[in-house]
Amino acid sequence: MREWTSLAQNIYDRPEFFDGYSRLDRSVRGLDGAPEWPAIVRLLPELRGKRVVDLGCGFGWFARWAMMQGAAGVLGVDLSETMLSRARAETTDPGVHYLRADLESVELPEEAFDLAYSSLALHYVEDFARVVGRVFRALGSGGHFVFSIEHPIYMASTSPGWLTTDDGGRTWPVDHYAVEGPRVTDWLAKGVRKQHRTLGTTLNTLIDAGFAIRRVEEWSPTLEQVAAQPSLAEELDRPMMALVAAQK
Amino acid sequence: MREWTSLAQNIYDRPEFFDGYSRLDRSVRGLDGAPEWPAIVRLLPELRGKRVVDLGCGFGWFARWAMMQGAAGVLGVDLSETMLSRARAETTDPGVHYLRADLESVELPEEAFDLAYSSLALHYVEDFARVVGRVFRALGSGGHFVFSIEHPIYMASTSPGWLTTDDGGRTWPVDHYAVEGPRVTDWLAKGVRKQHRTLGTTLNTLIDAGFAIRRVEEWSPTLEQVAAQPSLAEELDRPMMALVAAQK
Repeated sequence: MREWTSLAQNIYDRPEFFDGYSRLDRSVRGLDGAPEWPAIVRLLPELRGKRVVDLGCGFGWFARWAMMQGAAGVLGVDLSETMLSRARAETTDPGVHYLRADLESVELPEEAFDLAYSSLALHYVEDFARVVGRVFRALGSGGHFVFSIEHPIYMASTSPGWLTTDDGGRTWPVDHYAVEGPRVTDWLAKGVRKQHRTLGTTLNTLIDAGFAIRRVEEWSPTLEQVAAQPSLAEELDRPMMALVAAQK
Repeated sequence: MREWTSLAQNIYDRPEFFDGYSRLDRSVRGLDGAPEWPAIVRLLPELRGKRVVDLGCGFGWFARWAMMQGAAGVLGVDLSETMLSRARAETTDPGVHYLRADLESVELPEEAFDLAYSSLALHYVEDFARVVGRVFRALGSGGHFVFSIEHPIYMASTSPGWLTTDDGGRTWPVDHYAVEGPRVTDWLAKGVRKQHRTLGTTLNTLIDAGFAIRRVEEWSPTLEQVAAQPSLAEELDRPMMALVAAQK
């Protein structure tokens, strides 16, 4: 099978990573457990009647939500069999289909979708230009591509982690920003490999593929969110996520 | 006169700042003294026959260069009388005109230009949406807007300056990234006031005005540039400048 020969790191099927991931607020509570979710909703088109593909669909939260919004159908794509098993078990809507595939090599039917969505998955992909090209082809004219990725400010440093300044403040290190390529960190498990790209490269890759950039959000919490969850104040100091909306 | 009532900080007319600025490589050698210049040239349209406005024209280097490329005419706008005096003294081409005006309040004729250019000036402007709106109106259909600004990664921190990591490396602090507004630093003179905006805000403001984003470059030097000028290696660790190309 194609996916077994891929070089992509299937971190989600490693038990220690999966256990940690399953305990995250966004895994337990679903979309509402992700603080960036309200900002993502604002970037999405009206979903009624839309054909949707979700790249890195995980437990299928977004697929089921999209159907509740009236989507015509959702194809959820993920590499992790563990995640897809749970997604299938929790999805009863016949309009949702799941496909096990590696985003590095996934093939999608042409002009078959009105929205391509991806949440925090594309920063694991090494060949971003390839997947963007496939998404462009898979969308009909006017189709939307909305995704979140780890922000390159968060990912760039070879030693990512808060530093304490002389006056006792908190600051985030940025180095090797222009040096694109793999970053290996310990998050939930040891040796998680991500792909650092500048924000410029991400946007220019979309433009080169033919997309128009509709919105770029370097996500930060609202004051209400910080009041409700004080740990989110960190996100005012440096963005952890970038949200991008583009259109064919 | 309008410009005297402006709140904009006219730092370039302060002697200590002007003296320091005049000694920078980009002031002595002109465009070729700016390491980002080759990258900017790649973003510019063919200039032959084009009507150009340069927002923050300084000594007029770009205006004279544009005329040499065959531009139909250039309007150079700057707030600094000191800089405009030198620009006028060094410009003989009758196709170049200079206007003393504050970018916060400048008025431009409608659909009068094919290219709006700005080098490292717009990060001093408080009301970015206003100037972007004025530029959009001032451009003809298909007109280009190409500019460089200080990168928000460079500007965000309340204590910008290299930090030494535990392993002896160099890293740049990022904090208060989502907190947009003034940043006061000592660069060439004390108390220079700049305006921090996220890259997302810069791009979304352009999109909201009607521009299509053509290119976003978080400028970094080539290896050849680093070999010729080793101090530029810092720019691989964190971008100091963002270059943006947009089109009406």
